[in-house]
Amino acid sequence: MTIRFELLAECAGARRGRVHTAHGTVETPAFMATATAATVKAMHWRDVKAVGAELVIANTYHLMLRPGAEVVAKLGGLHQFTGWQGPILTDSGGYQVMSLSQLRKIDEKGVTFRSHLDGSAHELTPERAAHIQYQLDSNICMVLDECTPYPATEDQADQSMQLSMRWAERGRKAFVPRPGYGQFGIVQGGIYPRLRHQSAAALIRIGFEGYGIGGLAVGEPQAEMFGILADITPALPQNQPRYLMGVGKPDDLVGAVARGVDMFDCVMPTRSGRTAQAFTPRGTVNMRNARHQHDPRPLQDDCACPACGHSRAYLHHLFRQEEMLGPMLLTWHNVHYYQTLMTQMRHAIETQTWADFATHFDETQKLGDIPLHA
Amino acid sequence: MTIRFELLAECAGARRGRVHTAHGTVETPAFMATATAATVKAMHWRDVKAVGAELVIANTYHLMLRPGAEVVAKLGGLHQFTGWQGPILTDSGGYQVMSLSQLRKIDEKGVTFRSHLDGSAHELTPERAAHIQYQLDSNICMVLDECTPYPATEDQADQSMQLSMRWAERGRKAFVPRPGYGQFGIVQGGIYPRLRHQSAAALIRIGFEGYGIGGLAVGEPQAEMFGILADITPALPQNQPRYLMGVGKPDDLVGAVARGVDMFDCVMPTRSGRTAQAFTPRGTVNMRNARHQHDPRPLQDDCACPACGHSRAYLHHLFRQEEMLGPMLLTWHNVHYYQTLMTQMRHAIETQTWADFATHFDETQKLGDIPLHA
Repeated sequence: MTIRFELLAECAGARRGRVHTAHGTVETPAFMATATAATVKAMHWRDVKAVGAELVIANTYHLMLRPGAEVVAKLGGLHQFTGWQGPILTDSGGYQVMSLSQLRKIDEKGVTFRSHLDGSAHELTPERAAHIQYQLDSNICMVLDECTPYPATEDQADQSMQLSMRWAERGRKAFVPRPGYGQFGIVQGGIYPRLRHQSAAALIRIGFEGYGIGGLAVGEPQAEMFGILADITPALPQNQPRYLMGVGKPDDLVGAVARGVDMFDCVMPTRSGRTAQAFTPRGTVNMRNARHQHDPRPLQDDCACPACGHSRAYLHHLFRQEEMLGPMLLTWHNVHYYQTLMTQMRHAIETQTWADFATHFDETQKLGDIPLHA
Repeated sequence: MTIRFELLAECAGARRGRVHTAHGTVETPAFMATATAATVKAMHWRDVKAVGAELVIANTYHLMLRPGAEVVAKLGGLHQFTGWQGPILTDSGGYQVMSLSQLRKIDEKGVTFRSHLDGSAHELTPERAAHIQYQLDSNICMVLDECTPYPATEDQADQSMQLSMRWAERGRKAFVPRPGYGQFGIVQGGIYPRLRHQSAAALIRIGFEGYGIGGLAVGEPQAEMFGILADITPALPQNQPRYLMGVGKPDDLVGAVARGVDMFDCVMPTRSGRTAQAFTPRGTVNMRNARHQHDPRPLQDDCACPACGHSRAYLHHLFRQEEMLGPMLLTWHNVHYYQTLMTQMRHAIETQTWADFATHFDETQKLGDIPLHA
């Protein structure tokens, strides 16, 4: 048996579920910890676990280049390599080839490119992407797709989506089923509902353990993304997980969960943590700002993370001094905040109090940061 | 009552003791964790404690420039600012003025200089150094001194030492005694035994809670340093701690403990951890070396630190990728190694087995790293 999804409750369009994998269970809605190159930047693995992340996402593109999929395979796969014994999802690398690599060339067969690290030549095909993810020992593998750029004409989005669907079919054939492992197809089609539905239907016909929704949060207005989600999630199987790829800000997550999404990943909490931007219930706070210099108060007063055991003045000092502990603490805080937000959403669905939760979330975000310290 | 030193045992010149401070006890021989700018670089404070460090050293020069002693004082002192509730020692800043600042001018009154951060003008006198350390709430304060350079003629070393002794007298007058707090004088005199003894006598006449030994490990051969130590420590009070400043490599520590030193600080374990150099019982290992690329073995197989829960291949990958987790793990390992070495030394003195310990230490260091993985 592959990975299995349990739908536990629904409330106002939001779903409360559970993904069972060979390496443990993921409570959904879930936000993954980003471990692109087999490490959650600035966090010890024990702390990733302590903060409540249950699923981590690693990246095929990065790992095939360094240290190499064969190297990871010989060392026993990603769980063994990283020491993270929980579930792991891997992106197929298609998105990163387009955003990071040089001299890339895409055709029916796949994509050839040169590494952004050393210029070496590589090829990624739907089959090779599946094989690499097998070598990495990924619990949830993503098919290779082309992330349709924004803006794109309907014709461009159509062509791109059709290619992704042909690749999905090949990727599925190359997938080796194992108990507690699975593969997700990826819905494309840009901002065009007709194409999104065609894509969803094509993937369902092939049959996967879950469905990614790709090509969103690439520049389109949030309302447009929410519109696409509201339109397409009812067309996806009720008994399988839906994963909105690369999203997003806290309000993106709340809006997407309300539209039937179960899983998310985004670099935002970890990347922002390294650049002094903190997420809080009252919106974002920049710890480099001089207003914090003498402030004895914690970043967020009801937060149990180690960053909030310190004063804002101390966090400010660390960033001003460019001390590693600044990114370490703020990454922890942000991951903690995101995980807490997911816990609150799961609880709101279970208790049928989604509307109250969503209202409170919006109102608190609008308050903005606490007033300047006297 | 100021800080208090208990001498518990002696073996072959090595001393086993205990320093009692207002913020807890330090078992000696002790190696401090380096928290120059109020953070042990790349380590969470909870992990500094977990790894067994009992005393941390922060720096007057760095903290007076940023965030400023007044800022730290207003925030409740260094314990409150950092969250570290254990004992804290602060260097006086004299050494850093000489090594880091610009346009410094030294005269009888003290030293004026421009900040290496922003060029702002500052003055450090023996009185101001004592006052800043009071503001920082340092348990063990060091007097302002001039670190005599190496090489120096006997006349240069004499002049420099005499200045430091006059400063020590002024620094002592400016020290505010508090229960569980103390101040150390610093023995100078370069490589000249006559001057070292003059310096020690002058400091003892003034009277301090302990004695630093400065101006060593500044370029002289290790044998010369050991010679100075063997000659001078018997001249220092038996019932007070001796602190060899800025030292050193593992074999420096073992040799210095055997010559009656109780306390040490050095950036080596933390700085090396950030640049991929690991300390092990079998000597140093550079994790950037390609020999580790496929090596499934831990850095050190009998080590309980989180770095050694991973393969050498993983640590190598992290440094090659310039991932922060590399420095984080290797700093932890190095601090762990240093703390373990101090524990072993304390045990050897308690059990009167110093000679066995020292022989085993030397022989293991000489083995060098484990052979290449097949």
